[in-house]
Amino acid sequence: MRVENPRYTERFGSVRINDVQSVLELDSGRAKEVPPEENIAALKVEEDVIKDYEEKMAIVIPTKDEKLKLFEGVISGVPHECLLIVVSNSQRKRVNRFQMEEDTLNQFCHFTRRQALIIHQKDPILAQALGEAGYDDLLDENGQVRNGKAEGMIAGMLMAMVAKKDYVGFIDADNYFPGAVWEYVKCYAAGLSMSESPYAMVRILWRYKPKLSLGMYFKKRGRVSEITNKCMNSLISVKTGFETEIIKTGNAGEHAMCLRLAKMLPYASGYAVEPQELVSIFEEFGGVLPMAHGKAAKHGVDVFQIETRNPHLHEEKGTQHLQEMLLPGLGTIYHSPLCEEETKQVILDELLQQYVIVPDEEPPKPRIYPPLKRVNLQKFSEIMEGYMGSYSAPGEK
Amino acid sequence: MRVENPRYTERFGSVRINDVQSVLELDSGRAKEVPPEENIAALKVEEDVIKDYEEKMAIVIPTKDEKLKLFEGVISGVPHECLLIVVSNSQRKRVNRFQMEEDTLNQFCHFTRRQALIIHQKDPILAQALGEAGYDDLLDENGQVRNGKAEGMIAGMLMAMVAKKDYVGFIDADNYFPGAVWEYVKCYAAGLSMSESPYAMVRILWRYKPKLSLGMYFKKRGRVSEITNKCMNSLISVKTGFETEIIKTGNAGEHAMCLRLAKMLPYASGYAVEPQELVSIFEEFGGVLPMAHGKAAKHGVDVFQIETRNPHLHEEKGTQHLQEMLLPGLGTIYHSPLCEEETKQVILDELLQQYVIVPDEEPPKPRIYPPLKRVNLQKFSEIMEGYMGSYSAPGEK
Repeated sequence: MRVENPRYTERFGSVRINDVQSVLELDSGRAKEVPPEENIAALKVEEDVIKDYEEKMAIVIPTKDEKLKLFEGVISGVPHECLLIVVSNSQRKRVNRFQMEEDTLNQFCHFTRRQALIIHQKDPILAQALGEAGYDDLLDENGQVRNGKAEGMIAGMLMAMVAKKDYVGFIDADNYFPGAVWEYVKCYAAGLSMSESPYAMVRILWRYKPKLSLGMYFKKRGRVSEITNKCMNSLISVKTGFETEIIKTGNAGEHAMCLRLAKMLPYASGYAVEPQELVSIFEEFGGVLPMAHGKAAKHGVDVFQIETRNPHLHEEKGTQHLQEMLLPGLGTIYHSPLCEEETKQVILDELLQQYVIVPDEEPPKPRIYPPLKRVNLQKFSEIMEGYMGSYSAPGEK
Repeated sequence: MRVENPRYTERFGSVRINDVQSVLELDSGRAKEVPPEENIAALKVEEDVIKDYEEKMAIVIPTKDEKLKLFEGVISGVPHECLLIVVSNSQRKRVNRFQMEEDTLNQFCHFTRRQALIIHQKDPILAQALGEAGYDDLLDENGQVRNGKAEGMIAGMLMAMVAKKDYVGFIDADNYFPGAVWEYVKCYAAGLSMSESPYAMVRILWRYKPKLSLGMYFKKRGRVSEITNKCMNSLISVKTGFETEIIKTGNAGEHAMCLRLAKMLPYASGYAVEPQELVSIFEEFGGVLPMAHGKAAKHGVDVFQIETRNPHLHEEKGTQHLQEMLLPGLGTIYHSPLCEEETKQVILDELLQQYVIVPDEEPPKPRIYPPLKRVNLQKFSEIMEGYMGSYSAPGEK
């Protein structure tokens, strides 16, 4: 893979936010000695380096009643070396959709000779392990893991830690193009390999997100992304005194990070999870609030934003869905201790204009889960490992 | 890449037509010793083997006034080791679209450190070289290469021979997904690597060809493909006496072959080119007509049909375009010396039903170009090599 070198980096405390880097070539061929001057503009990331990262990476696919054909396509696009971890909140009553997902994954893993994990979000062992490991924040009044994508992602990250992986990447199960999924993972690996710090995050920017309404219109950004990015940039600008447009992936569902970094971040519930990750990084490492992680702050945190070659084509969920996504995302920014009055006003104006709130209403405060370092991982692993066979694909028949 | 093993092969004389093989996994990871029993159902084609084939492969992209963004995406998806050969019939007057394509290709090659060739279909040197090499069949009354996709493909194959490649693959320039382009080339290489003969062809079958009319409908096959396949299967069935449905890629625009085979086949003009290739193979190697190629017939010809993981999403050209494609394709079958009365009737019925012909009308006989072995390649190369600099990207500035 060949990617643009980071041409511009903004700093916010010990966070290094790199400007967008485009993928130039999906497949840059065999390994070769490259004279250093050739890497000035474009960086060739060798296939072997990418595979080194993939081997240590878990790809978490949170899913809920997604079309089985799409799910099947998505898993077929994830490079072989990655450990697939499916966290499903699909229905199990009447039509057992979770069972279908398990069967699909089993069949795929059988023929491709690979290993994967699949777990239901409401799995009682998972809930028990979380409780005993001191992380019952994720559980509802019935003692089950709460609903929500964020909650599935958190369960997935913990499974990745049990499997002793170093990196975790997320991919949505509603993608139409296995080839795009493949590219996301390559971008994750390429980005992580560029990091100078063991604390890094890679966020994916789509070149286009085609709209199907009038034939095919290749839209650059969704409305929600535009507004979220604007507000997040305001958060930074007001603090630094220099206006910035550096953040272009505030809502990126497709992203990856070092588990070492993942352990340190508080997470927001539901759709607020992706913007909150950035907000958490700014809070923890921005140097404005007291910093809890001395060692990590010394290394700094690298944030990469990589623009794919493939457009992003996924199931359309309609405007309702978009509004559902806007509010929680802006809520994370609004309620951050970093957020000044100026940025708050920008957020309220945007929400009013989109008819998401009424005058004098505030966005609700997101539910925030504590960082995963709070989990007693040894305890959690002990319990989960006893049942690993039942979560493994191809399953024991 | 992991692909299904050929599970079923039909023979027609010395042609081995393999049933559809699906891609199971886009990226099957690092090279590894695979116990032979694991390759019973699915074949792991190692990345290194694929690259060996890519190095010897030219990817020909015939294009005509295609959207530049699509062209740019398509070239970015072609694996680095392949030699890109663009044969363009785009306009050069008023808005010089050919120049834009050249610029795009130059920029791409500059940043990705690769070599490519780009030539205009109406290039006077090309026409001169063809004339002097004894292949003026391709020229019109003005002494220029004729219009048409087939004509561009033939020019591309000759350029691949000048560049001393062993394989040629074709990719249309109107593809929306670079990741799908990437997969086509991997399938070409994987298929060619499976061949037991130095005379092989790989034809791509799309898993889905989504229709955008009503949201997104994942259609299996286009109407033209269905009818063409049916008629081509009838051609074989009537000859062998056993009904068959083996041909599923009669119209495959995406296909690749050994140049050794490519040299032997007569080609039809325009949209008839892809079905004619199969018809030519049946005529030359089917054992029904006298066989001209003793050595090749001894090796046999392998035809692979590989089903991609990615759906095929390209520019919609409307129904008019589809009818334009149906008639020439069926014409090649109809006018083949292999075609019996029974198959002719099937073809006429289909064309009548689609309102493409009126009663008592026959499909027109396609224009057939003689095999490329007729070209004096040494002469052709001598002339072209003198101008290679002007066809090369990145160009000499």
